[in-house]
Amino acid sequence: MRAVIFLLYFYSVYASDIDEYFDKRYKILKSESRLSLGGNVSLSDKEAAVNICLMHYKFKEVDYWFDNPRYFNCSRHYFNYKQYIKTSKVFRIIQDMPKGAALHVHDMGLLGPDYLMNITYQDNLYVCFDNNLHLIFANAPPKSPCDGKWQLMSKARSFSNNVTKFDADLRNHFTLFVKNPDTVYPSIRETWRAFMKFFFTVQPMLSYRPVWEQYFYDALKKFREDNIMYLEVRSILPNLYELDGTVYDPIVTAKTYKKVIKNFTKVHRDFFGAKLIYAPPRKVDRSKLEEYLELAKRIKQEMPDTFAGFDLVGQEDLGSPLIEFVPQLLESRKELNYFFHAGETDWYGTLTDENLVDAVLLGAKRLGHAYALPKHPQVLNEIIKKDIGLEVNVISNAVLSLVRDIRNHPLSAFLAHGLPVVLSSDDPGVWEADPLSEDFYIAFVAVASRLSDLRLLKQLAINSLKYSALDSISKDDALRKFNYKWNEFIDNFNCSKYQH
Amino acid sequence: MRAVIFLLYFYSVYASDIDEYFDKRYKILKSESRLSLGGNVSLSDKEAAVNICLMHYKFKEVDYWFDNPRYFNCSRHYFNYKQYIKTSKVFRIIQDMPKGAALHVHDMGLLGPDYLMNITYQDNLYVCFDNNLHLIFANAPPKSPCDGKWQLMSKARSFSNNVTKFDADLRNHFTLFVKNPDTVYPSIRETWRAFMKFFFTVQPMLSYRPVWEQYFYDALKKFREDNIMYLEVRSILPNLYELDGTVYDPIVTAKTYKKVIKNFTKVHRDFFGAKLIYAPPRKVDRSKLEEYLELAKRIKQEMPDTFAGFDLVGQEDLGSPLIEFVPQLLESRKELNYFFHAGETDWYGTLTDENLVDAVLLGAKRLGHAYALPKHPQVLNEIIKKDIGLEVNVISNAVLSLVRDIRNHPLSAFLAHGLPVVLSSDDPGVWEADPLSEDFYIAFVAVASRLSDLRLLKQLAINSLKYSALDSISKDDALRKFNYKWNEFIDNFNCSKYQH
Repeated sequence: MRAVIFLLYFYSVYASDIDEYFDKRYKILKSESRLSLGGNVSLSDKEAAVNICLMHYKFKEVDYWFDNPRYFNCSRHYFNYKQYIKTSKVFRIIQDMPKGAALHVHDMGLLGPDYLMNITYQDNLYVCFDNNLHLIFANAPPKSPCDGKWQLMSKARSFSNNVTKFDADLRNHFTLFVKNPDTVYPSIRETWRAFMKFFFTVQPMLSYRPVWEQYFYDALKKFREDNIMYLEVRSILPNLYELDGTVYDPIVTAKTYKKVIKNFTKVHRDFFGAKLIYAPPRKVDRSKLEEYLELAKRIKQEMPDTFAGFDLVGQEDLGSPLIEFVPQLLESRKELNYFFHAGETDWYGTLTDENLVDAVLLGAKRLGHAYALPKHPQVLNEIIKKDIGLEVNVISNAVLSLVRDIRNHPLSAFLAHGLPVVLSSDDPGVWEADPLSEDFYIAFVAVASRLSDLRLLKQLAINSLKYSALDSISKDDALRKFNYKWNEFIDNFNCSKYQH
Repeated sequence: MRAVIFLLYFYSVYASDIDEYFDKRYKILKSESRLSLGGNVSLSDKEAAVNICLMHYKFKEVDYWFDNPRYFNCSRHYFNYKQYIKTSKVFRIIQDMPKGAALHVHDMGLLGPDYLMNITYQDNLYVCFDNNLHLIFANAPPKSPCDGKWQLMSKARSFSNNVTKFDADLRNHFTLFVKNPDTVYPSIRETWRAFMKFFFTVQPMLSYRPVWEQYFYDALKKFREDNIMYLEVRSILPNLYELDGTVYDPIVTAKTYKKVIKNFTKVHRDFFGAKLIYAPPRKVDRSKLEEYLELAKRIKQEMPDTFAGFDLVGQEDLGSPLIEFVPQLLESRKELNYFFHAGETDWYGTLTDENLVDAVLLGAKRLGHAYALPKHPQVLNEIIKKDIGLEVNVISNAVLSLVRDIRNHPLSAFLAHGLPVVLSSDDPGVWEADPLSEDFYIAFVAVASRLSDLRLLKQLAINSLKYSALDSISKDDALRKFNYKWNEFIDNFNCSKYQH
């Protein structure tokens, strides 16, 4: 950065004019800083010391990029630079920092390909290869349609002659990661096709009941290890099944969440818990939506503490816009809290784009993505008035073809205007990201202001609890527990730990 | 686009609730539409008919892209799709449409490589090749430093054995266009290096006085042919020279503008004219800036009608930020109007980024680019309060590495919020774009709302005169003449002309 020294006495302009100028300038920047997210947080002496360490490393990174833009990774595809993130000292500090909650994550996108590969080593998994990869747990060869031959995975693997290659090929089905993303994903269509194919592939394997339960348990573990204390998970609630072919009602899937959360929090007392948002696919007709809503209400009735609300998922451009379901959604809004995906699009002035209007009018408690918000000043007013949380997922938006150079992500404007942002990670497993730390890191060093500091990070963590679906007593409790963790982090912080 | 039909009677929610909902929804969208740029323009019956034709073709293009995102060109580098623009019917309508003024263009970036190639066929041009290409007009071999040998271009060309190849190689020096932009321009540093090299190469050739005069005359001609009626051109005012080595003061360069404008408007009575913004390089120290300001004042005194004001040019990240010159610029602001480049950067929270604050506090009449504005809510307030024009150059920002997918350009938000935008083209010759039609086209089909129509285009054209440096009487006159041209365009509009 460049130093500026003023040799005022050289100039005939009145010193008072110059004073007035710099006074005004200071006020504008000060008021922008105050308005920005975290701008009203005041740091204790200990926090200020941590901040000095954090900002020392942040300035080093950002200023190096400013001086050497060719090495600024975040202007490229995430897959081209993800391996370098781990070397960042800022990233390591963020990993250690309590980050509160992850409020926008999806059931089968929580864990990465290595975890999924381990599942393929379990007994009773059948595999069939045709144009797709089919995976089902069963105690006899499945009858599900497949143009190839169903065989036990263990046999297929040992017959492959080359287990390393077999597993490497298999692993490719469990991730969007490729080395040449610009070629493989030329547009949002190809990206989403691969993304949907991922879910299509893993769902039959993951919805084997014991695997489903273990997967979610292990996901909570992984998120907790990334210093996250609470989750709100969106699930399509697939029908779980047993080896003998028994298939359960989706309500069983919902109950599984409740059970796993209970088991997990019993063992990990510092983990605050999780809630479920029922979020089935949006590309349906109205009668299907009616079924969804009925199920949501049943779940709410059966497990009011675990159930948070309702959403619809899938590529917004291709699915039904919310306007198609207004009468039903209006009717159900007294019973259900909404957490709609809205405005996850670059197409300004389309029905997808207008989902933002409907989501807000339907009383959504938070919005998923809200990427298109800068184009909707009236929706913005409503969001501010109603204090609606914005669930921003920067890596997801980059991977799913909304934006290349992450500095163009609207989050920078959201932060500048102090909007109620919560950072989340959408489907970190699908792009092999950490549960939340990488999203925090990229937002902090590449989207937020160079000058944004620990106060922003703390506010983002606090927001993730403030805008959660917890009732007010639980929220206070969660915030108290967060503060405890936060102070522990601050008290034990040792800058020299990050030196090497 | 998807049709939506409401079968309200199926639902038990009160019809009045639904009415109320759609009433609110309509009001939000209506008020967003009103707030957006052009939202208050009302169209005559004839204009409405033109609009139907325009929007028929716009919807066809945009909806095709929505359905086939792989063929949406504007998510790629401009160089990868520029050749397809000419086939668009919307583009051809925009070409024919009076567009008002171009308020942000640079002296040596007005005309493209083919024009520059023609200059190299003139007599008395000497050339020397070393790591760079050196070009000087003279009546004897120049003594300017060059590691190669100075020879007449005509001789070099005829000795080359292959004139086609010689000219093709030469032409590459006169354009940023390449077939593989992602490889050649990996970051803003390489792009700007090539961009600066372009000016370094052409300046000695173009500043031969007769060539300089002819270049600007021909530029006015080309802009007029693109249905532009007025220009404000930023010039670094290089020292012009004669064949015998006579070198002139920059004030002569300024006078040349005045002379050419006079000659041109005499022949082309429908062309309203042009003004000069003196815009020397920003990477200087304070004493050099003092010289600049003195020169600006002298020019203003000598030709107050032609002189519009002062600016500084060059890559903002690398040049001096405005804050370094506050005392001098404060002192001169009573005498000079400012049209500062500000916020042409992706680096949020840097001194470059803060140029926006200084530009506004120094009383700039318009801002060049203001790309970083969404991150500055207080600056935004000042801009609205003081009605400061924003000179947006979408193709420039894409080519010069600020944004890839043009839908992420902040112009979409500027338009949505009805900010005082004027569209311009910066250096269209350098990237082989049309004078202004391509910038209008891309802004209209790829940045603005799908629903934005002729009212936006008309408002943009009107803004280009409204925010010009013309005095109020001339402005009224210009607007009157624009309206005449506009009505002529509307009256003579024939949709079938664009059918094939």
